[in-house]
Amino acid sequence: MGSLLLKGVQLDNRTTDILIEGNRIARIADNLDVSAGRVIDGTGKTVIPGLINMHTHTAMTLMRSCYEDEPLKTWLDKVWAVEARLDEEAIYWGAKLAFLEMLKTGTTCFLDMYWMTPVIARAAADMGIRGFITYHFLDNFDHGKAELQRRECEEVYAQSRDWPDRIQLAIAVHADYTTSEATMLRAGLFAREHGMVFTAHLAETLSETQEDIFKTGLTPARHFNRLGLLGPRTVFAHGLWLDDHDIDILGRNRVTVVHNINSNLKLASGYRFKYNELRDAGANICIGTDGAASSNNLDIRESMKTMALMQKAWREDPSAMPLDELMDVATVNAARALGIDAGRVAEGALADLVLVDTQSPAFIPRINFIGNLILSANSSCFDTAIVDGRVVMEGRKVPGEEEILERADAIAREINKVS
Amino acid sequence: MGSLLLKGVQLDNRTTDILIEGNRIARIADNLDVSAGRVIDGTGKTVIPGLINMHTHTAMTLMRSCYEDEPLKTWLDKVWAVEARLDEEAIYWGAKLAFLEMLKTGTTCFLDMYWMTPVIARAAADMGIRGFITYHFLDNFDHGKAELQRRECEEVYAQSRDWPDRIQLAIAVHADYTTSEATMLRAGLFAREHGMVFTAHLAETLSETQEDIFKTGLTPARHFNRLGLLGPRTVFAHGLWLDDHDIDILGRNRVTVVHNINSNLKLASGYRFKYNELRDAGANICIGTDGAASSNNLDIRESMKTMALMQKAWREDPSAMPLDELMDVATVNAARALGIDAGRVAEGALADLVLVDTQSPAFIPRINFIGNLILSANSSCFDTAIVDGRVVMEGRKVPGEEEILERADAIAREINKVS
Repeated sequence: MGSLLLKGVQLDNRTTDILIEGNRIARIADNLDVSAGRVIDGTGKTVIPGLINMHTHTAMTLMRSCYEDEPLKTWLDKVWAVEARLDEEAIYWGAKLAFLEMLKTGTTCFLDMYWMTPVIARAAADMGIRGFITYHFLDNFDHGKAELQRRECEEVYAQSRDWPDRIQLAIAVHADYTTSEATMLRAGLFAREHGMVFTAHLAETLSETQEDIFKTGLTPARHFNRLGLLGPRTVFAHGLWLDDHDIDILGRNRVTVVHNINSNLKLASGYRFKYNELRDAGANICIGTDGAASSNNLDIRESMKTMALMQKAWREDPSAMPLDELMDVATVNAARALGIDAGRVAEGALADLVLVDTQSPAFIPRINFIGNLILSANSSCFDTAIVDGRVVMEGRKVPGEEEILERADAIAREINKVS
Repeated sequence: MGSLLLKGVQLDNRTTDILIEGNRIARIADNLDVSAGRVIDGTGKTVIPGLINMHTHTAMTLMRSCYEDEPLKTWLDKVWAVEARLDEEAIYWGAKLAFLEMLKTGTTCFLDMYWMTPVIARAAADMGIRGFITYHFLDNFDHGKAELQRRECEEVYAQSRDWPDRIQLAIAVHADYTTSEATMLRAGLFAREHGMVFTAHLAETLSETQEDIFKTGLTPARHFNRLGLLGPRTVFAHGLWLDDHDIDILGRNRVTVVHNINSNLKLASGYRFKYNELRDAGANICIGTDGAASSNNLDIRESMKTMALMQKAWREDPSAMPLDELMDVATVNAARALGIDAGRVAEGALADLVLVDTQSPAFIPRINFIGNLILSANSSCFDTAIVDGRVVMEGRKVPGEEEILERADAIAREINKVS
């Protein structure tokens, strides 16, 4: 990989140059007098760290907007029926559609939880995005299934050593109410042994949380804690239904909790996400979109806006969820959870950057860039995306996008049985 | 005005042609064999009625993102201090910035509530948008001010007869807690006498509603009702804090209530908007953005998404706020309140149309267009806008937009005292 010079970009209210060497930011200085393999004119553009989507189910893009305004039960039945029809080709093109959408909306890295791990890894490798792709345990308390998944996980792990560096394997357990304790433990220990991220759904709905208490005598957070599965590489999606003791446990163990506000609102799972309490207890808070079948898109910037608005609304406090903290939630907090030096525009950090085109009404007046970006703009403002030092989108164009739209659409119409 | 042919556009899941003659839709048919003054190629684009923003304060675009994460009281103090510095030039360019943003996000018509009515009317006339611009009564119970406003309103009314047909005068009363009953009555009767829309803020916050009850013995809705000011041309913004009797009164009088969800969330005014109850009582429900100082943008499509999500969330019912009803809220319901035949793509209706470019990941799969448009896309999907039969945006370009961004930015930096 060569060098790349971003010339005359806006960064923290000044105009500067950024030199990228290999996959890292080498220098940030005004009027850099260096030669570079490639120069990008940053005039009229503001650089920010690429956003990080910490919870999604990539190939569910194929079910986008197909099952709307339905009660949760019939919605799930329909989604599951379609998922049973997904083959490798469908997963591949569904994942590519997801990554195309991510790049176009300013996201350069994600943590996925889906099936056919190697297929999704191949799609991510082909698209140039950075990603953490899970092997996903869900045994429905079936011993045979558990054994099968244990072996399959070992195989995927062996394969994953051939993946490019920017694609990493992580370990997922669907949730404690769908997976045996033996599998949860084995999955958690496997992740720890290999220094991998460990992720699971946690306390997404009130009913699942109450059922947990009824069956195990423990809340979901206490349940994972009793199995010794909490730590700084543990990433829980949702965490909507937590009591004070849960928050204390998650905080003391420096666990990451990923808020998926748009999905939570749409599926009526809840919205009183305890951001302040979790942060103050020591938890690391990130943001995700969930799958496109529930939130309808993979637009992290849009989710940031909804998160800000909802924190202010339910807390009845317009000063809740300040914008600068929200930027951290979508960038450095996520990088910390994933164990990568990204999410910041700084010398030495990974060159995962996006350029924002501010030539639109949403950015006028040019007084508060972050306010305009999160609360006023839409995600078509992202003009250029750089991942691991490589330009993967420029002028809002990603190579091969027409084919992705066409192939994914054809497959989706087939699996959703739409003529 | 000549004729305009939209060739090969998508409408209700089929490909068709639309012929516009003068300011109306003349014919909708497949493969229309007519000659037209101008032809627009609609390939890959879907036509919908232009969206209608039923509550905004246009020139507050100049304060966009300037006062963030502040408690309501200090926020209001800062906004009012800036508003005192607004002159005609500032209002003109602030309004133009608002109309540019509206057109770019698919809005072709609005109901505004601000100051310097003739200046805003001139800005709207220059931008080619359709608009209802209010003369705005707010007397702070001061008899002298009331007299002044009465005379000024007569003058503006006289002037308004020279405005283009698509720009109409309406009458606003700020709210019943800021305006004397004498002025409320006079304003309401003036509107009725001249067949104009009458609008006011209503029950936006709990505290203002409680104060009303304390001072007048009546809720805001009952207060307006006692003065005989309810009817099908009455448009109330907000209506968040209503009891069952209020809802019954508003419904029986066929009043319009405009939900401004993003502003309500951000200012922590409330979010339990009683959509189902108001609709079932007979009220007409529309949507607005409020000013860009509170909601940060004038993006009706984005507000529609938030409205759908929040109705599902607070009602704890994923089937609440169905998407087809939501389209009516942003189109035909508004046209009904304004007394114009718009908000629908039909022969004979006003030609206020927007073309949606669906060539992006957000519209894949191509199974549920309305779901993709409201819940998945962002408002850069609007490619072409036609108002009153005239093309005012094409290929996302509005004539003169660079000048508007520059002028509005310079003025905003001056009035917000930012160097």
